[in-house]
Amino acid sequence: MIDEAIKALKNKKMILIHDFNDRENETDMVIASEFVTPEIIRTMRKDGGGLICTTIREKDAKKFNLPYLDDLFYRSLDMDKSVLNSSDMGYDTKDAFSLTVNSRDTYTGIPDNDRYKTVKHFSEFINSLGNNANENEKNFGKIFRVPGHIHLLIARNNYFKERKGHTELSTYIVEKAGLIPSATIVETLSDSFNSMTLEESKKYADEHNIVLINGKEIIDDFNKTDRILQ
Amino acid sequence: MIDEAIKALKNKKMILIHDFNDRENETDMVIASEFVTPEIIRTMRKDGGGLICTTIREKDAKKFNLPYLDDLFYRSLDMDKSVLNSSDMGYDTKDAFSLTVNSRDTYTGIPDNDRYKTVKHFSEFINSLGNNANENEKNFGKIFRVPGHIHLLIARNNYFKERKGHTELSTYIVEKAGLIPSATIVETLSDSFNSMTLEESKKYADEHNIVLINGKEIIDDFNKTDRILQ
Repeated sequence: MIDEAIKALKNKKMILIHDFNDRENETDMVIASEFVTPEIIRTMRKDGGGLICTTIREKDAKKFNLPYLDDLFYRSLDMDKSVLNSSDMGYDTKDAFSLTVNSRDTYTGIPDNDRYKTVKHFSEFINSLGNNANENEKNFGKIFRVPGHIHLLIARNNYFKERKGHTELSTYIVEKAGLIPSATIVETLSDSFNSMTLEESKKYADEHNIVLINGKEIIDDFNKTDRILQ
Repeated sequence: MIDEAIKALKNKKMILIHDFNDRENETDMVIASEFVTPEIIRTMRKDGGGLICTTIREKDAKKFNLPYLDDLFYRSLDMDKSVLNSSDMGYDTKDAFSLTVNSRDTYTGIPDNDRYKTVKHFSEFINSLGNNANENEKNFGKIFRVPGHIHLLIARNNYFKERKGHTELSTYIVEKAGLIPSATIVETLSDSFNSMTLEESKKYADEHNIVLINGKEIIDDFNKTDRILQ
């Protein structure tokens, strides 16, 4: 199934990733950021329904000092810090949220055309990152405005050794496909007011001819690759 | 029309607000936060399609030091600050974004049931605010986790004297209706990949029997009231 998923991603198609029954138990729509189109954004908001987010690897984020919101807020939120306590979060100990951005080449930033431009330019920006942090930061400021309407998510270094979220699962498989290592993802919600169940996701995948893969298959592939590299 | 809009809001109904042809030129779905239901969140994500946001007046935000993201980032973003320059934003000079939150009484925070709980608890929280900031902050941290999946927006003090966005328009009219002064809003997007045009919004309003009001009517009402109060 991992080969099918990688093939679909290379062919500019969306895939579905279900994480784990004992984690979020959610299915996200996933596409390589470089292949996002206005049509894809429309499908993500209408058939997915969650927050449309774009990922970046932690090592790329560090090249222009893009922070985790958690770290930024712990350092500087001028308020009782208890609101940052996530120890009662049911499915993980930390989240992946970073800044929200708009491409400067947008108007309000929210329509499909605008979010498409923001994602497209962000994948190009990742691809252009050099080793001079200050230059990268200046380029970031030239191309983007903060805050905006696309949520950036940072995939932890060493992937699943640190966290097994959709951020890591999707970024790993896009990188594995040899594409610019950034995924654009959205949670799939159901008319039942809950997230789509795995059964509902399978039905959606069948009806739309989309590959559905689960977190375990992706992590098994990572562990295999990791052993080879060592 | 303002009387009809106020009546609809009191009757727990959603209204539509179009701002101005020469501003965002967007129509938002608007409901009093205290009347949000899982059904409303589902309608907002499926028929609206933008970011689901919940507003608070600046004077209430100050009671627990809830910041504008702009201010927080200017103070503490450890990166070249050019990304915060919004002078090229076409429709306004400043945005209304504050933190994103989840109620602790949610799991992932994104399904309709979860976002409903977050909004519901936030309107109750606003209603409970006292004059002791530290106590308010601790209560905020007891009820909510940051970051999350509902975007908080802060409506500027003195409303339209400072900003004429959907944040101010919606919060003013909910307050005017005598309800807890917090609106939950979402941008309406079109299948054309753009925002809904005013024509498309009118069609949606007609089909769903929803009151559509424009920014000018709301500001005219504010100016009239303001004169009376002085």
